[in-house]
Amino acid sequence: MKNPLLSFILFLAFGIMDQAQTIESPDGQLSLHFKIKEGKAIYALDFGQKSVIKPSHLGFEIKDQEPLADGFVLVESQTESHDSYWTPVWGEEDRIRNHYNELLVSLLQESTERKLNIRFRLFDTGLGFRYEFPLQDKLAHFVIKEELTQFAMAGDHTAFWIPGDYDTQEYDYTESKLSEIRQQMENAVTGNLSQQPFSLTGVQTSLMMKTDDGLYINLHEAALIDYATMHLNLDDETFTFQSWLNPDAIGDKGYLQAPSHSPWRTVIVSDDARKILESRITYNLNEPSKIEDTSWIRPMKYIGVWWEMITGKSSWAYTDELPSVRLGETDYTKVKPNGRHGATTENVKRYIDFAAEHGFQGVLVEGWNIGWEDWFGNSKDYVFDFVTPYPDFDLEGIRDYAKSKGVEMVMHHETSSSVRNYERHLDKAYQFMKDHGYHSVKSGYVGDILPRGENHYSQWIVNHFQHAIEKAADYQIMVNAHEAVRPTGVARTWPNLIANESARGTEFQAFGGNKPNHVTVLPFTRLIGGPMDYTPGVFAMDISKINPDNNSWVNSTLTNQLALYVTMYSPLQMAADLPENYERFMDAFQFIKDVPVDWKESKYLEAEPGYYLTIARKDKNSNNWFVGSVNGIQERVSEISFDFLDPEKTYIATIYADGKDAHYRNNPQDYIIRKVVVNAKSKLKQKKASAGGYAISIMEASKEETKGIKKL
Amino acid sequence: MKNPLLSFILFLAFGIMDQAQTIESPDGQLSLHFKIKEGKAIYALDFGQKSVIKPSHLGFEIKDQEPLADGFVLVESQTESHDSYWTPVWGEEDRIRNHYNELLVSLLQESTERKLNIRFRLFDTGLGFRYEFPLQDKLAHFVIKEELTQFAMAGDHTAFWIPGDYDTQEYDYTESKLSEIRQQMENAVTGNLSQQPFSLTGVQTSLMMKTDDGLYINLHEAALIDYATMHLNLDDETFTFQSWLNPDAIGDKGYLQAPSHSPWRTVIVSDDARKILESRITYNLNEPSKIEDTSWIRPMKYIGVWWEMITGKSSWAYTDELPSVRLGETDYTKVKPNGRHGATTENVKRYIDFAAEHGFQGVLVEGWNIGWEDWFGNSKDYVFDFVTPYPDFDLEGIRDYAKSKGVEMVMHHETSSSVRNYERHLDKAYQFMKDHGYHSVKSGYVGDILPRGENHYSQWIVNHFQHAIEKAADYQIMVNAHEAVRPTGVARTWPNLIANESARGTEFQAFGGNKPNHVTVLPFTRLIGGPMDYTPGVFAMDISKINPDNNSWVNSTLTNQLALYVTMYSPLQMAADLPENYERFMDAFQFIKDVPVDWKESKYLEAEPGYYLTIARKDKNSNNWFVGSVNGIQERVSEISFDFLDPEKTYIATIYADGKDAHYRNNPQDYIIRKVVVNAKSKLKQKKASAGGYAISIMEASKEETKGIKKL
Repeated sequence: MKNPLLSFILFLAFGIMDQAQTIESPDGQLSLHFKIKEGKAIYALDFGQKSVIKPSHLGFEIKDQEPLADGFVLVESQTESHDSYWTPVWGEEDRIRNHYNELLVSLLQESTERKLNIRFRLFDTGLGFRYEFPLQDKLAHFVIKEELTQFAMAGDHTAFWIPGDYDTQEYDYTESKLSEIRQQMENAVTGNLSQQPFSLTGVQTSLMMKTDDGLYINLHEAALIDYATMHLNLDDETFTFQSWLNPDAIGDKGYLQAPSHSPWRTVIVSDDARKILESRITYNLNEPSKIEDTSWIRPMKYIGVWWEMITGKSSWAYTDELPSVRLGETDYTKVKPNGRHGATTENVKRYIDFAAEHGFQGVLVEGWNIGWEDWFGNSKDYVFDFVTPYPDFDLEGIRDYAKSKGVEMVMHHETSSSVRNYERHLDKAYQFMKDHGYHSVKSGYVGDILPRGENHYSQWIVNHFQHAIEKAADYQIMVNAHEAVRPTGVARTWPNLIANESARGTEFQAFGGNKPNHVTVLPFTRLIGGPMDYTPGVFAMDISKINPDNNSWVNSTLTNQLALYVTMYSPLQMAADLPENYERFMDAFQFIKDVPVDWKESKYLEAEPGYYLTIARKDKNSNNWFVGSVNGIQERVSEISFDFLDPEKTYIATIYADGKDAHYRNNPQDYIIRKVVVNAKSKLKQKKASAGGYAISIMEASKEETKGIKKL
Repeated sequence: MKNPLLSFILFLAFGIMDQAQTIESPDGQLSLHFKIKEGKAIYALDFGQKSVIKPSHLGFEIKDQEPLADGFVLVESQTESHDSYWTPVWGEEDRIRNHYNELLVSLLQESTERKLNIRFRLFDTGLGFRYEFPLQDKLAHFVIKEELTQFAMAGDHTAFWIPGDYDTQEYDYTESKLSEIRQQMENAVTGNLSQQPFSLTGVQTSLMMKTDDGLYINLHEAALIDYATMHLNLDDETFTFQSWLNPDAIGDKGYLQAPSHSPWRTVIVSDDARKILESRITYNLNEPSKIEDTSWIRPMKYIGVWWEMITGKSSWAYTDELPSVRLGETDYTKVKPNGRHGATTENVKRYIDFAAEHGFQGVLVEGWNIGWEDWFGNSKDYVFDFVTPYPDFDLEGIRDYAKSKGVEMVMHHETSSSVRNYERHLDKAYQFMKDHGYHSVKSGYVGDILPRGENHYSQWIVNHFQHAIEKAADYQIMVNAHEAVRPTGVARTWPNLIANESARGTEFQAFGGNKPNHVTVLPFTRLIGGPMDYTPGVFAMDISKINPDNNSWVNSTLTNQLALYVTMYSPLQMAADLPENYERFMDAFQFIKDVPVDWKESKYLEAEPGYYLTIARKDKNSNNWFVGSVNGIQERVSEISFDFLDPEKTYIATIYADGKDAHYRNNPQDYIIRKVVVNAKSKLKQKKASAGGYAISIMEASKEETKGIKKL
């Protein structure tokens, strides 16, 4: 605590001294205050002298019971310090420090004799706290009507937000003052195949904010297991967020039993936006890996028969003749193929060849399995069986061909949100993958959940997503779940959850486009919880050239796309574009070929949410470094130092940058590639176009190799 | 058609002749009329000159589409006759005739170009009809808002009904005029652990009615597969029932895709109540067995550690110390047993000994597996694992002990209506049964369905029940599902569905009692769809003698209980009472030991729903016959002839009858057993007490054996 006086004054404001508790972060910068005031549990968080969370209430509304929100007395409090390191299976670094001071308060609601504990962990980069329900006589099983956690903000901060919704996170971020959320909500709620916004001031986490006095504040949660997803609803007169748990079909928000606990609620805070990205609070608040042998979990790059369907050039469906398919009954050999089916043996082999030639480990194929003719929007329970290929997809032949080329097929399990059907087939589908040597699966939950009434983020469905991950681990299968709940660091515990979508990904560039600054926001929001399968790497921005009926435009320059392989951390990275588009830009494509997907170390060089972001990462398996820098809509000059390099070594840097006239809309493919020699003393000033960026590969080089190459 | 003139007049009333269709039953007694009138599809059913179903509309309301209920034209009609026999795996006879005349009408709704077919099958004992949705362009996937099937009754009939409800059938039957249903509904809706009545004139099927002019009419459905359960809602001014499909969580009533069809709607009708019981329409309208090798499906009698829990003498739970259990975490070896646990090794062995001594093939044990401390009413998803025994239940030891005694254990799977949890564990649970030699399972669905919002009889849950049956067949497991949807003859197709509860069973005798005439109604209602695990055989009517805190009384005489083994057909019959109670009445218990559970032939000797019922059945594996006769509340003299016996043979009949002073309430254990010689010419007049009855075993005997025994 830098300013003990402020702390003292705050405590006086809180009320009776003997029930007040304070802990500080290990570096003393953050202070967490807890007290009981007039029977209510209240916490507050300060960053130095600045208030991050003003005194805010904690508690619950319980169905058919008294609220568990007041009448509390503090029975006991305990503090503890923790400092340790752990080794992630994959990640932005190979070693993570878990360093915090903890306060555990044990509360008793005297009138009902119910007990509630709250555990706070204060890290240098922020706060995590959770509710704990100890084993007790007066509270065994209970139904949450609402969680009453407040986050009272100290002012009308600028926020990067998406609408609170029970079914989708696939929105563009809106940058606005908190006070402007209400008026901007209508525009922010853009169309989606399944959506259910809940309030005019409701937003989702992770929520990124910036205060007028320069604090960066991020609200999210960690370790969402068997609990409803937490959204936030804003009281826009007081700027106080309150938790808004995702309800089930009858409006209940969670079925709990003691002993148990809520997920952690997190407040990441810094006066430096880069520290938000550095923070590992979210993982640290999750349990260590429950998978003992993790040798089968391998980060990888992949390509896929996918963008051609997303753009509308080809189709997932085999035929246009079937308005209604019955799996096991419909005879596909009797219908006329539509001639646009993407997942044909021939086409897939073309992708396998491309992957093998350019060093991609995986090839994803969507639309390989029967059922796509009526898969969407039909409330069809038995919609896919996950094991039967279309007649033009030679599963064994493709499997063997891929193997002969050293490439692995990536399985695709679209569920159409018929989650019971998926669970019924899960064992067989995973076993089928094992039998055929597919070690990773992209799963999808497009459309409204079956049974109708349920939605994507309720406790019941969160529990399903978790079930699929845990069962996949039994089969040593890596999961990349799309349209599942946004991650909350659970990949620490289940590192086979190698990626999620759970945000507006590249696909929307072919559905009308993403905001040009979208990728400068995502690392501060969606990626706080874990890696995203954003599927970057689109080189051909004019989608009408792929499909004349699609006038979408990819709002990005080509080198911005390259930078994403560094800025959008994921152990699973796709090169999303068509092979023929890459073949037109082989020099730029080299960066995608070179860039690794697993890292020893990461340096956050420049960061401003919504505006720019520059990250340098060191390959886990070499001394090479890679830099990615993305830009928002305003042109900008990035200035970086290479002081992260080993001062003893020399490197050759290949800089892939926007060309002089580059502009995401007018000239996205204008880029310059230059090779220079760099060392730890090098510095770079690099212009970035609107929605542009640059990428640098920095390869350790011998004197010999640097000969004839200019110094930076 | 006995009266062609009537038919002709009816047709004139229907409208344009060229769109009118009529078929008759094979015996000419029933006539079915169909026509399009002002664009509406209308059917009517006559029994001789009597109207059974007055002209009634057919059709659907479809969500987000035009109703599929008018604007029809008749495109085509086809008739067909069918006559064949099939052999049930088990049943009331060993050979069933399937004999009907069929009318298939193909309708087109011209304004929408949607097609709808209706198939009628007219048997001697009634009508079945269903909707068929052919493959077509304009109707592929659709959502049923309501099925608009009418059953217009010809008058204010007397009905035996239970309240229409989305979650339970466990009601006593009310006998009333149709016009009185509304006023009696409130009394009829008695408490249940899960219930959701839907209308003041809503009733369930199978619904039994009697007209003032002596017709018996039964409305039900057959082959309920992947469709919502049909209830009936009465317009009590016109006495017209309309189908009321069971909705899901959002009120939708079914998700269909063409080609498909509805279940069959059945109208069983006769002027002789016995013919209602003889009718095999329900089975005949189901598909033949899908299980090829049925040798493992074996009817059986069983006892169980069950009645002691039902009466409250002992408990399912092992301890009273755990308000909250976490399977896999809660350590049962560390808690204090409550001393009342029924499923202890010692107690189970006592039942095994009793079963072995008295020739019962099976022993059911409830409460053997962990989780019963908090199993009910807690919305607990992971409530049971179906494989882990309590510490005082030695699974292997019991299994081996039973085997050594020639007895087989019956598995118990209470799901607590957490259906997803059950499905997740189904493979393991069934494999566990196989590994341990359990070939049959009693499953249970007590309480509200999880996920909340769903209910017991929606399409989604009907689909679950079916899934459990079909998966059980894969493991060669017989299913006796309690609290599942009432059967609709599906056991023909899946004969491993050996029984259901799905009505108010004997357990309610320990929960305050059933109406004294309950068992005279059930064969006309609940049993129309298939066998019931009614669990008869209670000899000790004063429950307070088992548990002083339970003042329930079993509303039945002892010999009424014996008769149930014949009148309540099931291939699975329990002897429900405690061994110590049977030991007090070993002479009467002999009947339960003797009675078979599978039959060659059945004769319905006397029948009047709500009042009396006498059935004779011939053992499938011998020449022995067994008679059961149950009585309603009024004393009655049953008069039967033994002309069903082989005239060439002589038999010894043991008659177990109410004693002189027998009365279900005052003197239920007053009974007389006498042995007499009978042959095909014998006749019997036998008095039955209030809620009394008699049972007769009729064993083929040699001259030698009959010596010294009086002739009847």
